[in-house]
Amino acid sequence: MPAQLYSYQQLADFTKSVFLKIGCSTEHADTATKALLSADLRGIDSHGVARLSGYVRLWEAKRVNATPEIKVIHETPSTAVVDGDSGLGLVIAPFAMQVAIEKAKQVGTGWVSVQNSNHFGIAGYHAMMALEHDMIGMAMTNASPLVAPTFSTDKMLGTNPICVAAPAGKEPAFVADLATTTAANGKLEILQRKNVQTPDGWVQDKDGNASNDPHALKTGGALLPLGGDKEHGSHKGYALGAIVDIFSGLLSGANYAPWVPPFPAYVPMPAQQPGKGIGHFLGAMRIDAFRPADDFKKDMDHWIQGFRNAKTVKGEERVLVPGDPEREFEKERLESGIPLLEAVIKDLKHLGEKFSLSFS
Amino acid sequence: MPAQLYSYQQLADFTKSVFLKIGCSTEHADTATKALLSADLRGIDSHGVARLSGYVRLWEAKRVNATPEIKVIHETPSTAVVDGDSGLGLVIAPFAMQVAIEKAKQVGTGWVSVQNSNHFGIAGYHAMMALEHDMIGMAMTNASPLVAPTFSTDKMLGTNPICVAAPAGKEPAFVADLATTTAANGKLEILQRKNVQTPDGWVQDKDGNASNDPHALKTGGALLPLGGDKEHGSHKGYALGAIVDIFSGLLSGANYAPWVPPFPAYVPMPAQQPGKGIGHFLGAMRIDAFRPADDFKKDMDHWIQGFRNAKTVKGEERVLVPGDPEREFEKERLESGIPLLEAVIKDLKHLGEKFSLSFS
Repeated sequence: MPAQLYSYQQLADFTKSVFLKIGCSTEHADTATKALLSADLRGIDSHGVARLSGYVRLWEAKRVNATPEIKVIHETPSTAVVDGDSGLGLVIAPFAMQVAIEKAKQVGTGWVSVQNSNHFGIAGYHAMMALEHDMIGMAMTNASPLVAPTFSTDKMLGTNPICVAAPAGKEPAFVADLATTTAANGKLEILQRKNVQTPDGWVQDKDGNASNDPHALKTGGALLPLGGDKEHGSHKGYALGAIVDIFSGLLSGANYAPWVPPFPAYVPMPAQQPGKGIGHFLGAMRIDAFRPADDFKKDMDHWIQGFRNAKTVKGEERVLVPGDPEREFEKERLESGIPLLEAVIKDLKHLGEKFSLSFS
Repeated sequence: MPAQLYSYQQLADFTKSVFLKIGCSTEHADTATKALLSADLRGIDSHGVARLSGYVRLWEAKRVNATPEIKVIHETPSTAVVDGDSGLGLVIAPFAMQVAIEKAKQVGTGWVSVQNSNHFGIAGYHAMMALEHDMIGMAMTNASPLVAPTFSTDKMLGTNPICVAAPAGKEPAFVADLATTTAANGKLEILQRKNVQTPDGWVQDKDGNASNDPHALKTGGALLPLGGDKEHGSHKGYALGAIVDIFSGLLSGANYAPWVPPFPAYVPMPAQQPGKGIGHFLGAMRIDAFRPADDFKKDMDHWIQGFRNAKTVKGEERVLVPGDPEREFEKERLESGIPLLEAVIKDLKHLGEKFSLSFS
């Protein structure tokens, strides 16, 4: 079934109304809406408005606090730990990123680890907040366990994404936003809906055998770290996911490893809770804390043009620079609208009925 | 041919003598020796004493300055740029890491980007300097171009490694040290010597076709970013290598992308030199700039034990924690000696003759 197009403004108005209905302040509803819908704009459909009802269910399960008192509980000139008071990660992460940016203004860089949060949408939204300040932005988060480390059948890590955003001059910014797995869970979900086999290296079955079953996770299997298996470097993807977990969960005092709370409200909480909520890590580095921003940005332009002009393999039109596909989605979708699948539309209509809001 | 065993002390004495012969100060020769041989101890044979003659050839080609004036050329409370004055990266990177550690003592974190350097050995040595200060250490470096980005036939990036070292309590430290390619160049060299085909996803041929030829790089081919191809996430490995290049090369004013000077002295310098030498990026984060170090280390122990006790796939004895294999190599090799291949021994004997030093 073809997807139906919705304007950004229509989805934003509806989303904001839903956040207001669960009790968010106007400011929080605004921030959460922008953060959530940045995923739809950037083509990461799994992390956008399709998840709105999931956030509401977490609120219904009393796992999301709609009126959190978000605060810095420890700090030094270049670091802070933020307690998110069980609020929406969509609101807490921008707060924490703002703290990182202010610290970078003062002492060159700012690094904020966050505890007691929930899912924050796409990492890219938060990291990109640094760009307008001529800073490099970084964002990462741990997440509920779906990924088996190399040689294991146990799901021990989330898809634990990393985003780094760096400003350029005439060229658009470099924005690398990546799950530390071979394939993001959202991509797997697309194959599940189509009932299509996965490529090698995406998933394993419950015994740790290579699998191409898109439903492998539902029968005890796991997503695989970037690399897929040991011979192809899965120990590196595992290590990267582990680094994200350490920075986000262990530096902040959040939960970590298999004890990170699940996103679906119907999945029971892990038996053990070594920390509070889920964890994020946000960073900002002022370019001119290293060298004049204009010099850096000229070099970034040169770098980007070098990659754009690199020779392509036969059959490919161009070499992409990280951030290109998402930026092109954003331009197209702001102009022509955001396509939603029938299942998502139905879900949003249902959400509308629950809150006496119309969605059509 | 079986490898011959040498004691750490014998290799260290010889290596230090060579560095002294090319004119290094005693202090620099000491530091360079420790950094270089940490690779041999940790089982990363490609980056250790096997490269000693390569460093000497760079000095002979006047690309390595044995008496550099290494200095901070720009700084803020949490950042610095270090000019390595064309010295050995083996000496410059520890200098820069020390600057990062001092800044972390003062303001919580320290971040140092380095220009005008040469290859620094293994990233792990530098990152691990932070551990004894109860800090998380990070080290990365750009390197001469061997890697084609996704969809390209051009070699645009080095193997650009990332290391993150985090202290634990009773457990040994977490040390993840990884090239951002499917396989490190050293692993490819092993297959070249044995003339054995590579697994899929390690290299491509000159036209960008999938290849299993261990000699593919010599005929215009390239190493592949972690992931191997687009379907398996190579755009992520490419993005990670790019991040390393931006932090190491563009933030510091070093060369970057395909313009990073090659390690082999016989390879001509790139036609274009947008910056100075090669670049590194070193970071240190004081644990107690976030939360009490003892609390963090207890959680690290819990994290590590969780992974060690994870269920294994059939046929595997245990789940490894990043740093385990290297630490086991180090223990074994300090006790029993470091195995050197005949070709390496011959190379070192030749080096000994050149400097009237005996190696046997």
